[in-house]
Amino acid sequence: MITIDAPTGIGEITPGCDLTGELLRVLVPHDGDIWVVTSKVVSKAEGRFIDETDKDRARRIESRRVVARRGGTTIVEHRLGLVHAAAGIDSSNVEPGRLLLLPLDPDASARRIRAEVAERTGARIGVLISDTSGRAWRTGQTDLAIGVAGVLPIDSHIGRTDPHGNDLRVTEIAVADELCGAADLAKTKLGGRPVAVIRGLAKLVTVDDGSSADLLRPAAQDFFRLGRREAVLDAVLRATGQTDRYDELVELDGDELVAAVTAGAPDDADWITRLLGHAPVG
Amino acid sequence: MITIDAPTGIGEITPGCDLTGELLRVLVPHDGDIWVVTSKVVSKAEGRFIDETDKDRARRIESRRVVARRGGTTIVEHRLGLVHAAAGIDSSNVEPGRLLLLPLDPDASARRIRAEVAERTGARIGVLISDTSGRAWRTGQTDLAIGVAGVLPIDSHIGRTDPHGNDLRVTEIAVADELCGAADLAKTKLGGRPVAVIRGLAKLVTVDDGSSADLLRPAAQDFFRLGRREAVLDAVLRATGQTDRYDELVELDGDELVAAVTAGAPDDADWITRLLGHAPVG
Repeated sequence: MITIDAPTGIGEITPGCDLTGELLRVLVPHDGDIWVVTSKVVSKAEGRFIDETDKDRARRIESRRVVARRGGTTIVEHRLGLVHAAAGIDSSNVEPGRLLLLPLDPDASARRIRAEVAERTGARIGVLISDTSGRAWRTGQTDLAIGVAGVLPIDSHIGRTDPHGNDLRVTEIAVADELCGAADLAKTKLGGRPVAVIRGLAKLVTVDDGSSADLLRPAAQDFFRLGRREAVLDAVLRATGQTDRYDELVELDGDELVAAVTAGAPDDADWITRLLGHAPVG
Repeated sequence: MITIDAPTGIGEITPGCDLTGELLRVLVPHDGDIWVVTSKVVSKAEGRFIDETDKDRARRIESRRVVARRGGTTIVEHRLGLVHAAAGIDSSNVEPGRLLLLPLDPDASARRIRAEVAERTGARIGVLISDTSGRAWRTGQTDLAIGVAGVLPIDSHIGRTDPHGNDLRVTEIAVADELCGAADLAKTKLGGRPVAVIRGLAKLVTVDDGSSADLLRPAAQDFFRLGRREAVLDAVLRATGQTDRYDELVELDGDELVAAVTAGAPDDADWITRLLGHAPVG
């Protein structure tokens, strides 16, 4: 039996406050518990606020590259390796006029909470830092693990067999993400419940801290490293020796995009127009 | 408090067997319970077995189109709208030499179980059919809802506000997928526990059956409808009037691909070679 509990009673978290202490006011940790802490309260405790007017600058600093853009929706690769909209910059459950960035190093934040719980109570728990993210192909968002300390990120069945003797070779379960999604069902999005405690899965709690990096697909194995539109733009820029213009050109559409790309490769105007001038909607 | 329990004691499910009856042998349903049933046992009860030698033919019948391919790994859009590897054809926990297809209509399967539970016990539960799937950008797999009956697929916070009065406008939580991931943590992948019961979330159980189609992103809103490599191939085929050759050409790589595409558009050989001849690895 697994239980998930997201207690109320945690007050507003402010920069510099003792987050672990606040969580310990409402939670009694036991060996093998998994705490799933919403990234928002970690960011608040770490003072990761910015002014709303700095949003565009922050987005550039927090992003490695634009993965896809349509209209005002931009999917980026975050400096932490996460692929998501809006560079993780959040305005919900924050004072009007202020925005919140993701924690600087969520694995380090998770390790700190884990170590402080062990130090103050003796309990050996696992800690996940969760964030909410959309996905390719499916509607809606789910919570994912962006920080890991003492929880198995991926439960690999490679080398195990089923009762029929078949290899379970392709099965590597992203249990850290499933744990964050499960915790979200208890925490909900309305605020006031920034942590959930999951009991009954002590087998997933590890001695080593581990890392959320295990959950990120390496670039060379990523078939969806660029959106459909951006993959075509990128290929054209490679073929015409203009790769350094991607960041600028990915912001353009339609005739404006075609004109800007052909300006840098006038001899190739015909086929560039045929390729980029009639992009499908989807 | 949410609880998740995945009982043992369910025997091997065979074609034509009374799946609901088998589940009721080990479960006592209560109003508001959510049952998450692994698609594999639904497929077994529905007799969705094929012979291993029919794998390629089945893959074509079960797939709408190839979304991406690298080497022997093919991501397809399944006829149910799911985007995943191997067209949902499964060999684990199946007799050697046999393979299992996804249920014919998982929403109908979920509705049948829900109705039979109500009829035989009077309990009003929600039912999800789950399947395991990889994702873009992240390693590992998670369980997702491919069949829905009486469970909210998406919990929309559109129109609600947080305690600071900010709109929660971009928040639509894919709770059905989070429920399936949570259930997977209790069921595990080793077999023998094909159903999990989730209690404490009766607020997500609905009067209407609903549909898993709400979890599928419409094509026009999907930025990742094709893999990076396939997006470029598709654009070239559109620009040269060869879109009908996509299914054939997506199977080719390198010089062989360039030769096949230019054979259909010899005047465009120069730029096609520049575009397709030097594709990046990732």
